[in-house]
Amino acid sequence: MSGYPEDLRELVDSYLGGLRFSSRSATEGLEEAMRYSLLAGGKRIRPVLSLATARAIGVEPEQVLPAAAAIELIHTYSLIHDDLPAMDDDDLRRGMPTSHVKHGENVAILAGDGLFAEAMRLYCEEQRGDPDARVAALGELVAATGVTGMVGGQYVDVTTFDLPPGAKASGEAPDAEALREMHALKTGRLIAASVGVVLQLGDVSEAATISYRRFADELGVLFQIVDDILDVTGSDEELGKPSGSDERHGKLTYVSAFGLDRARELASESHANARDALAEADAQTDDLARITDFIHTRHT
Amino acid sequence: MSGYPEDLRELVDSYLGGLRFSSRSATEGLEEAMRYSLLAGGKRIRPVLSLATARAIGVEPEQVLPAAAAIELIHTYSLIHDDLPAMDDDDLRRGMPTSHVKHGENVAILAGDGLFAEAMRLYCEEQRGDPDARVAALGELVAATGVTGMVGGQYVDVTTFDLPPGAKASGEAPDAEALREMHALKTGRLIAASVGVVLQLGDVSEAATISYRRFADELGVLFQIVDDILDVTGSDEELGKPSGSDERHGKLTYVSAFGLDRARELASESHANARDALAEADAQTDDLARITDFIHTRHT
Repeated sequence: MSGYPEDLRELVDSYLGGLRFSSRSATEGLEEAMRYSLLAGGKRIRPVLSLATARAIGVEPEQVLPAAAAIELIHTYSLIHDDLPAMDDDDLRRGMPTSHVKHGENVAILAGDGLFAEAMRLYCEEQRGDPDARVAALGELVAATGVTGMVGGQYVDVTTFDLPPGAKASGEAPDAEALREMHALKTGRLIAASVGVVLQLGDVSEAATISYRRFADELGVLFQIVDDILDVTGSDEELGKPSGSDERHGKLTYVSAFGLDRARELASESHANARDALAEADAQTDDLARITDFIHTRHT
Repeated sequence: MSGYPEDLRELVDSYLGGLRFSSRSATEGLEEAMRYSLLAGGKRIRPVLSLATARAIGVEPEQVLPAAAAIELIHTYSLIHDDLPAMDDDDLRRGMPTSHVKHGENVAILAGDGLFAEAMRLYCEEQRGDPDARVAALGELVAATGVTGMVGGQYVDVTTFDLPPGAKASGEAPDAEALREMHALKTGRLIAASVGVVLQLGDVSEAATISYRRFADELGVLFQIVDDILDVTGSDEELGKPSGSDERHGKLTYVSAFGLDRARELASESHANARDALAEADAQTDDLARITDFIHTRHT
């Protein structure tokens, strides 16, 4: 068993490519900016995770496509806003000019705002299922997006971890526990919600739910450790942006906090924990296992 | 019959004041920034409109408070993002420093993002009602927020109507029809949704729904005409920001397009149309009528 579930990725890419957000000429430029970032490629880890979760619990992946796509729209919106001059001020993303470089800062802010709103709309208009479950699942998704999730994590990141250029994270800098908390909010909760939303839409036993949720939480941790390692070890070409940008931004990362060797050990431990949790779920979790392996060994 | 329904405003203010978004110390600063803008006062026209609509259709206003508050959170988020340096670059709002002046541009962007996410969360977690109706009403709200609504209108505003400083709207400038469309998106749809969401949550006859929706659409038009007039005739103190800012920004407005006298006539016509539509609804619409009168005659 190996390899990323490309069939699910193709399902996601095809669905995302077919989305239209505007029917009037006056807002075509906004839609173009939104699609520019949304269709820039990538592994689509979050929506593929949603579809793989559906398959594991016996639901047709196609049935959760609106929810899965909504999560990718939210992820894309967060990338656009994170790249802004007032935030990380990044010029490149996946080898292409970032949204504000390409479209201007005002349009980039609105493209992010628009993607979030259209994610909600897509979910409300297209996601089927038991009505109460649909509201509960959406509640989990937006809780993972707001102050107790992605936006809150980005706030902690820019106000606590983004040290002045040249400064080094020192003994007075935030500690590893704060680092873990920041990442859990900024990245972990949306990854976990990619699984959790589908669990809520499906009909899953309490025991299996607990295993899946433990898996999803661990996957978020694994994702971030590997992300920090890649920022140091990856080439510019592989990353699609200059490597070492965390260090130049003075960011505290798993590598700066623990060193590269220990960070790699932590990744392996996290990978093992995630696989253990999956094994407990006792279901058709092959695709989820493949995604876990991919996240551990990816180069970009 | 006269006077703004202050009892409903107090209900809104009290509910908004009690909202908390963060339970961890790391994100207290973000919550503070969100509450700074949310609790800056104002007439709360949108949520009061929701509560008055509830009263008109025989629903206790308290029962739609989460939806009404969610709309005010969305409105507040839009003000924060509109004021940003990359957008209108305004330093004052309701007589107080704007979010980015007070908290920095990065925190202001995130405060807006956070308010939108928490609006969704509040709705999902707190708004009661028939589950299918809850999803449909939320769908209407986010459609009024995204590309086909507020965000789309702001895009048209910044890319089409925001002329270079000193430039005058000329024959080549966008015409009055485009102006009307921009405002319908940017302001009108969220005002209309403040009524529409409550209609969806309630149990309203088709005939009455048509009347209420005609009322709500007209109210959005009235609101914008009066807004444009006030930007010219209001004092700095009344407006809480420098008057004449539209003119300095080179914005096409109802006043620059039609002149002050004709704009006042258009406002009166719009007011009469809104009151006519209300009369057709044939219900306890006293509070809605008071809001309509207030929007027509307000000074701030």
